[in-house]
Amino acid sequence: MGRVKKIAILGSTGSIGQQALDVIRALPNKLKVVALTGNTNLELLERQISEFQPKMFYSSVKPETSYGGEFLSAEEIASHPEVDSVIIATAGNAGLNPTLAAIQAGKTVALASKEVLVMAGEIIVSEASLHKAQILPIDSEHSAIWQCLHGEDNKPRRLFLTASGGPFYRYSQSQLADVTPEQALQHPVWKMGRKVTIDSATLMNKGLEVIEAHWLFSFPFDSIEILMHPQAIIHSMVEFMDGSLKAQLSRPDMRMPIQYALSYPQRWPNSELPRVDWNKIDSLNFEPADYDRFPCLKLAIDAGKSGGTYPAVLCAADEVAVELFLNHRIGFTDIAKIVQETLEQHHIIRQPSLEEILSADAWARECAIKLSGDNCKKRERSSNLEIER
Amino acid sequence: MGRVKKIAILGSTGSIGQQALDVIRALPNKLKVVALTGNTNLELLERQISEFQPKMFYSSVKPETSYGGEFLSAEEIASHPEVDSVIIATAGNAGLNPTLAAIQAGKTVALASKEVLVMAGEIIVSEASLHKAQILPIDSEHSAIWQCLHGEDNKPRRLFLTASGGPFYRYSQSQLADVTPEQALQHPVWKMGRKVTIDSATLMNKGLEVIEAHWLFSFPFDSIEILMHPQAIIHSMVEFMDGSLKAQLSRPDMRMPIQYALSYPQRWPNSELPRVDWNKIDSLNFEPADYDRFPCLKLAIDAGKSGGTYPAVLCAADEVAVELFLNHRIGFTDIAKIVQETLEQHHIIRQPSLEEILSADAWARECAIKLSGDNCKKRERSSNLEIER
Repeated sequence: MGRVKKIAILGSTGSIGQQALDVIRALPNKLKVVALTGNTNLELLERQISEFQPKMFYSSVKPETSYGGEFLSAEEIASHPEVDSVIIATAGNAGLNPTLAAIQAGKTVALASKEVLVMAGEIIVSEASLHKAQILPIDSEHSAIWQCLHGEDNKPRRLFLTASGGPFYRYSQSQLADVTPEQALQHPVWKMGRKVTIDSATLMNKGLEVIEAHWLFSFPFDSIEILMHPQAIIHSMVEFMDGSLKAQLSRPDMRMPIQYALSYPQRWPNSELPRVDWNKIDSLNFEPADYDRFPCLKLAIDAGKSGGTYPAVLCAADEVAVELFLNHRIGFTDIAKIVQETLEQHHIIRQPSLEEILSADAWARECAIKLSGDNCKKRERSSNLEIER
Repeated sequence: MGRVKKIAILGSTGSIGQQALDVIRALPNKLKVVALTGNTNLELLERQISEFQPKMFYSSVKPETSYGGEFLSAEEIASHPEVDSVIIATAGNAGLNPTLAAIQAGKTVALASKEVLVMAGEIIVSEASLHKAQILPIDSEHSAIWQCLHGEDNKPRRLFLTASGGPFYRYSQSQLADVTPEQALQHPVWKMGRKVTIDSATLMNKGLEVIEAHWLFSFPFDSIEILMHPQAIIHSMVEFMDGSLKAQLSRPDMRMPIQYALSYPQRWPNSELPRVDWNKIDSLNFEPADYDRFPCLKLAIDAGKSGGTYPAVLCAADEVAVELFLNHRIGFTDIAKIVQETLEQHHIIRQPSLEEILSADAWARECAIKLSGDNCKKRERSSNLEIER
C-alpha cells in the first residue's frame, strides 16, 4: 500500500466538497484531509472540521474560534508543503487564484470548478506545464475522457462529450419560457449544486465543458462533439485515428470521478460506489444536440472559440443570470438573452492577464445586472399588462 | 515513422486472412507480407502470392510451381528470423503447432484462431510467459478488452463479452429446430467465415470466447459475463475495482481488431476503416444471454471450467457437427446435442500434453461422427416416417 495522500478541499461545504469528504471517509487508509475551506456556511464547515480535524482551514467569514486548526488563506493552503493534492471545488471565480498557487507549488490539482479553465485556460495550462503540475479533472465527462486517453500514445481524432439534456430536453420553446426555478432544480440523473443544475438545464454547462475540454486536452473546438445521452451512463467517448472508440461508463455519481482524481493512476475498490447493473439497462440512447432551443450551448462554444476575455464574460454573466432566475427575477429563457447581450457589449482583450480576466469578470457582472434590470422592468411591465388585461 | 513490420499470415485464404491482407494493402509504409500460407484453395493463394511477393509460403496441397517463393512448413514460417508478427488465422486445430513455434521463437502472435487458446490455453500461456512472447487477440471482443485494459495498472473486477446474438436470437425452440444452413450463414452484422458464422448462430462462438478470455487475461470464469447487444457497436467492456467501466466501440468490421493487433501499442490512421456515425445510432440495446435456447453457450463455459481435455473435445465435436449441419446431414439444434453427447462420453485428462490434447481431438471427431451417424439414421427414419404418414 502506498503512503496516505494528504488532501486539501477548497469548497468543502459545497456539493462536490461534501461528496469528496464521502470518498475520503470511505478510504481512511489512503486519504487524509489536511485542509478544508468554506464560504459562508460556517455551521457545516465547523462540523466537517470537528470530524476530519484538518491542520488548516479557511472561510470567507472568519469565525471567532479556531476550531483547533490554523486559519490560512486559500492560496496559502493550496501551496502548503503539507498538501499533496488540492481539490478545487469552489464556486464562480473563487478557484482561480488558489489553483494558480497550487500549480506554481507543483501540487496535483483535482479540478471540479469549471470556471478556472473556462476563464483562464491559457494561463492555467501554460503555468501547469511550466511547473510540471498535474491537473486532473473531476467533471464526469472530462474524467471519462481522461480515463479513455490513459495509456494511449496517439492523439485522438474526436472527443464526444455526452449530455443527459437535463429536465427540459423535450420542452418546446414556449414551455421553456415558463420553467420555474423549482422545476429546474430537479435534475433527472445528477445530484449537483444549484448553479450547475441550472446550467445543466440550459446546456450552458455542456458549453463550458467544451471549453474546459479544449484546454485540458489541448484539443481543437471543431473536433469536440456533443452527443445527447439521457441515461448518463456513458460519460464521454474518445475516437482514435483508427476509427476505434473508447467510452467510460458508470452510474451517474460524482464520487466516481472525485475518487479517480485522487487515486489516479491507480483504481481503488470502494464498496460505497454504485455499480452498473446491466440487468436494469436495456437501452442507451443517443441523439444530436439542439442548438436552437438551447442557445447557451452555442454562446459558450462561440465564446470559447473567440477566446480572450469572452469566456470570463460568459461565466460572469451566466452566474448573475442564474442567480436572478433562482430568485424569480427573470425567466428561464432570459438567462441566454442576458448572457448574449453582455457578450455583445464586451470589447475583447486578447491574451489577457489574470487581472484583465478578473476585471472583465467584474465588468460583465455589472453589465448583466444592468441588462437584467431593464429585463426585469420589461417583465414587470408585461405582467402588469397581463393583469390589466 | 517506425520500421516496416514483417508479417506472416497463416491462413491467408480464409476470411480473416483476406481481411488482414486488406489492412496490409492499405498500409504499405508500415506493414509488409513476408509469408503466406493456405490450405487447399491454391488458386486464391497463387493470386495473393503474385500480388504480395512473399519470401515464403506453404499450403496443405503442395503446388507444382514455387510461385517465386520458398515452400516451408507453417512451423518453419512461424519461427523464421525474417518474421516480426505471425497472424494465426487458420481453421480448427491447424494453428496449434505453428502458434507454439512462433511463441518459442519469441515472435508476436496476432491470434484469430480461437481453437489455439481454447484447446491448449494452459500450455500456450505458460510458453508465452517463458519466452516473453506477446499474444495479441484478433477477435473483436478480446481486442476490445485488450484496448480497455491498456494502460491500467489494477486487475479489473469483471469482463463483459458482448454478443450480437446472431440471426436467430428471437427464435423459439421449435423455430430453431427448422433453421437451414442457408439461413444460418446470413449473419446480421459480421462478415466472417462459415464455421464462425454457424458458431455465432448457436452462441458456441461466445462460449469459446469466454474460454479464450479466461486464458488471455488470466481471469476467473465466474467474473466473465455475457451481455447480448444486437447492434455489435460495443465490442466488450471491462469493469474496474472502483465501479468504472471502459468499453471499446466501432463499426463491426474485423479489419479494426486485425489492424490494432499489428499497430499495438500505436494506432494508425486508415481511411478505409469505417467510422461510427452517431447520427445513425439512436440506441444501443442490452439483454441477458438465454442459456436455455442456446445450450452451446453453457456447454462451452462448463467445458472451460472443467478444463483438461474437455475444451479440445468441445471444439472437435463442434467442428464435426457444424460441418454436418452445413452439409444438411443434421439439424441446427442437433449441433448442441452431438457436442454434449461427445463431452459426456469423454474421460478427461487433466493438465494434458499437446499430444494428449491432439489425441482427445481425434477421439472426439470420431465419436461425434459416430453419434451423428446414429443421429442421421434417426433423422432419416423420422423423415421417412413423415413421408409415410
